[in-house]
Amino acid sequence: MRIVALGGIGEIGRNMTVYEYRGKLLIVDCGVLFPEATEPGVDLILPDFSYIEDRVQDIEAVVITHGHEDHIGALPFLLRLRRDLPVLGATFSNALIAAKCKEHRINPKLQTVREGDLLSVGAFDLEFFAVNHSIPDALAVGIRTPAGTVLHTGDIKLDQLPLDGRLTDLGGFSRFGEEGVDLFMVDSTNAEVPGFVAPEREIGPVLDRFIASAKQRVIVASFASHVHRIQQVVDAAQRHGRKIAFVGRSMVRNMQIAQELGFLTVPDGLIRSMDKILDLAPDKVVLISTGSQGEPLSALSRMARGDHRQVNLVAGDTVILASSMIPGNETSVFTVVNELARIGVQVVHQGMAKVHVSGHASAGELLYLYNAVKPKNVIPVHGEWRHLRANAALAALTGVPKDRILMAPDGVVVDLIKGKASVVGMIEVGHVYVDGNSVGDVGDATLSDRLVLGEGGFISVTVAIDATTGRAVSPPTVSGRGFSDDPNALDAVVPLVEMELARSENDGIVDPHRIAQAVRRIVGRWVGDTYRRRPMIIPTIITV
Amino acid sequence: MRIVALGGIGEIGRNMTVYEYRGKLLIVDCGVLFPEATEPGVDLILPDFSYIEDRVQDIEAVVITHGHEDHIGALPFLLRLRRDLPVLGATFSNALIAAKCKEHRINPKLQTVREGDLLSVGAFDLEFFAVNHSIPDALAVGIRTPAGTVLHTGDIKLDQLPLDGRLTDLGGFSRFGEEGVDLFMVDSTNAEVPGFVAPEREIGPVLDRFIASAKQRVIVASFASHVHRIQQVVDAAQRHGRKIAFVGRSMVRNMQIAQELGFLTVPDGLIRSMDKILDLAPDKVVLISTGSQGEPLSALSRMARGDHRQVNLVAGDTVILASSMIPGNETSVFTVVNELARIGVQVVHQGMAKVHVSGHASAGELLYLYNAVKPKNVIPVHGEWRHLRANAALAALTGVPKDRILMAPDGVVVDLIKGKASVVGMIEVGHVYVDGNSVGDVGDATLSDRLVLGEGGFISVTVAIDATTGRAVSPPTVSGRGFSDDPNALDAVVPLVEMELARSENDGIVDPHRIAQAVRRIVGRWVGDTYRRRPMIIPTIITV
Repeated sequence: MRIVALGGIGEIGRNMTVYEYRGKLLIVDCGVLFPEATEPGVDLILPDFSYIEDRVQDIEAVVITHGHEDHIGALPFLLRLRRDLPVLGATFSNALIAAKCKEHRINPKLQTVREGDLLSVGAFDLEFFAVNHSIPDALAVGIRTPAGTVLHTGDIKLDQLPLDGRLTDLGGFSRFGEEGVDLFMVDSTNAEVPGFVAPEREIGPVLDRFIASAKQRVIVASFASHVHRIQQVVDAAQRHGRKIAFVGRSMVRNMQIAQELGFLTVPDGLIRSMDKILDLAPDKVVLISTGSQGEPLSALSRMARGDHRQVNLVAGDTVILASSMIPGNETSVFTVVNELARIGVQVVHQGMAKVHVSGHASAGELLYLYNAVKPKNVIPVHGEWRHLRANAALAALTGVPKDRILMAPDGVVVDLIKGKASVVGMIEVGHVYVDGNSVGDVGDATLSDRLVLGEGGFISVTVAIDATTGRAVSPPTVSGRGFSDDPNALDAVVPLVEMELARSENDGIVDPHRIAQAVRRIVGRWVGDTYRRRPMIIPTIITV
Repeated sequence: MRIVALGGIGEIGRNMTVYEYRGKLLIVDCGVLFPEATEPGVDLILPDFSYIEDRVQDIEAVVITHGHEDHIGALPFLLRLRRDLPVLGATFSNALIAAKCKEHRINPKLQTVREGDLLSVGAFDLEFFAVNHSIPDALAVGIRTPAGTVLHTGDIKLDQLPLDGRLTDLGGFSRFGEEGVDLFMVDSTNAEVPGFVAPEREIGPVLDRFIASAKQRVIVASFASHVHRIQQVVDAAQRHGRKIAFVGRSMVRNMQIAQELGFLTVPDGLIRSMDKILDLAPDKVVLISTGSQGEPLSALSRMARGDHRQVNLVAGDTVILASSMIPGNETSVFTVVNELARIGVQVVHQGMAKVHVSGHASAGELLYLYNAVKPKNVIPVHGEWRHLRANAALAALTGVPKDRILMAPDGVVVDLIKGKASVVGMIEVGHVYVDGNSVGDVGDATLSDRLVLGEGGFISVTVAIDATTGRAVSPPTVSGRGFSDDPNALDAVVPLVEMELARSENDGIVDPHRIAQAVRRIVGRWVGDTYRRRPMIIPTIITV
């Protein structure tokens, strides 16, 4: 069996693992990654499908472990390559996939699986296990092939008191381990964090206390897929005689789905529409909103800035961020918190009260997993390098031999042969960018230009020359954007360019490219000397 | 007495407070702020000097509480307005100011003050108090005028076991409080953090343990002004038979100064130059480096990327980040940590071991301050809104009446009259940007252009038209930067523009501005419809 991650190892996001056996493929998850500051303007990053795009007919199925964006977000793009790909997921995951695909005008071929199910897709015999995470209905998948057995956890934690009673199936893992797990693919996200994640059950009373003591409006922002957290808010609202409304497109949509499928229970009459709820007294209201990551266009950010169409927050209102801060979002979250603090809104966040716990196993829980599964080989997945290393160290502590713990980031090809996993090669797995409605046309050259332009703007110099003599037929047009607010900042450039043009003409140069190069050089040097800046210099020489 | 902050309240950075009495001014601190992602390409942000620039002759003195950049960094720019401004600071602060001013070719008029000093500058009677922070020789300043008494803490914590034995002078504050403090200006940075900052003394043994157990090279990255932390590293290195070298320009410079002034004690022969130290066995070496914030050009980042000229890190080396993460720097710090983890370097940071403590008082310490000083009025300073609100809540808990706790962010004018502080107005205090070697020419328009260019690049369309007929005399030149890697991405633009030009010509339009507007509109619409992107559209119409 061959294993290649097209995303998700060495980074957090765009999880996608390809399992190959005798030319047939099984894919687990197909998610997106969100761009960093060094990837400006990009909307999404997809796994690189190059390795499989000519072999989509050989894909037996795509297994989805759960419905988070970093596990399902790229599925519509994969389905564009083959519309009838069988997709296997649990009820709630499939409902979110269907909603997402609808936006892309794709009708996916979904098959519902659940914990305990055993089924075969081609040569891959699959077994599904219940796991808990920060979304309902998450699954781990066991994969048996004649060449070996793999256990792929997906995102996992071991909450021993889950709100829905659906435990991570540690017993099932033990049994599977007894049979012999050749390769264990394990979530690394919290491997650096010692101890155990507190039970979800401890969050409810804290939320309840803040809602009970609030004298005015309460807004709770959380992840739009964190149904159990939302259930806790709903319950607390009901206990304290407050009506609720869902705010934000994904929150409204997902909570509708969760209710329809029975994952979220809301007493009759508790929900109001946004229009209706605002007629109630402030102390009769809880709004449940998106925007917990400080997304500038989210409902919460707009409320904080005072430009939400319906909700006008005032001093004494309460905002609870029942969420973690995804790394990289700290600044935007605190921008929102500061805007709220300025108004005089009381802000409660994870830093000051236990209003959220992580959905990923801490080190202590990972040890339970290793000891249950007793794997022969381990690949830490779902993490940046620091997480992978920490997870590898835990595997080693439980007795997995160090040469059987593989650091296999995206693109590393691992073969599992006779119970031993080895790195056998490397494929190219670049970042595939979605920008607007096109995929893949934005690449490194474009991003590097954006970074230069974003740092220093540009200075453009346009000159029309006579095609035969090379003589300028009009004065140079010089303008800058993103360079200076001073309208006279570039006054010195016109005479500078004119001098250079005269020099070129004297030298008999008529090639527009050579003239452009000379202009770029002289203007670049001038701006470096004068301003110590490096804007992009854009010479345009047109011949008439 | 009138009080106006030109920076530092409502933000962390560029601290500068103006105290006015009978037309004369006393300034406390003059620092810089570092730009956020929404201020791309900018090097530094200065306090807005507009309020005082016509009155620099009325400034009696500038008092510097300590030598951090956010308290001294803008001083050279202020001194450009008046070179002979008297600057009062402690020994270490003044040494750092002198070094900074030298880079700006300014020779400041420095006067050294120390704790216990009483001196008058004009009508302002000053008293200096020792405080501890994350840099040696920090001071608080008491300001007595006939109109009232102020206590200005500067950055402060209450380490009860400071390494140099120099306690924050809580007794002095009490005595000053007994006399009656009309206005207390208090550091808010950690007001949200419950409890007490652990003593600096607890860090040493942790650093010692990691250095003792390291088998290869150790690199410790910390703040270049955190002399006490560096002292702990030096001591541990000596105990374990390792030589040290300082790496990074500011680290080398500051540790030289600290040694000369007796703030840092390094045994003879312990320091090696970088050239010499690399000949030693890896387990005989500790490098003390800058780069703890993940700055891409720092020594540590270059080592992590494998492009440091001298140091080549290998698996098994140890890097200790003996520092906090300044908010906003998380992504860059973890980028470095991940690069190090990839190599196999063991990385130790504050998240996993007590290798750093903050230099700012937590809530518990702030309560001690309020109870010692018993102020009549309070202005929380040195913080974003969330910190100011938390600090205000602490003041209220100790019994300061709520109407005497003023939220007075940058630019808010406060008058202290007969023992009562009140907001009386507001002045404009914009962000003044330093970009390259010029100050103030980059403003909101430029930044907003940079943000657009950084997100989507630009498409330029250049056309030469006949000045009298409006007829195009050459085909349009279309090019994009930061838009797409696809060379054919803009193929459709030329015919589109040609059609528009023909239309304009037919309509008898010869005004280049109107033609440019039409081109911008049509290309903008096309790119929105085709790509769902919004690059900047730059039409250039030249007349020949």
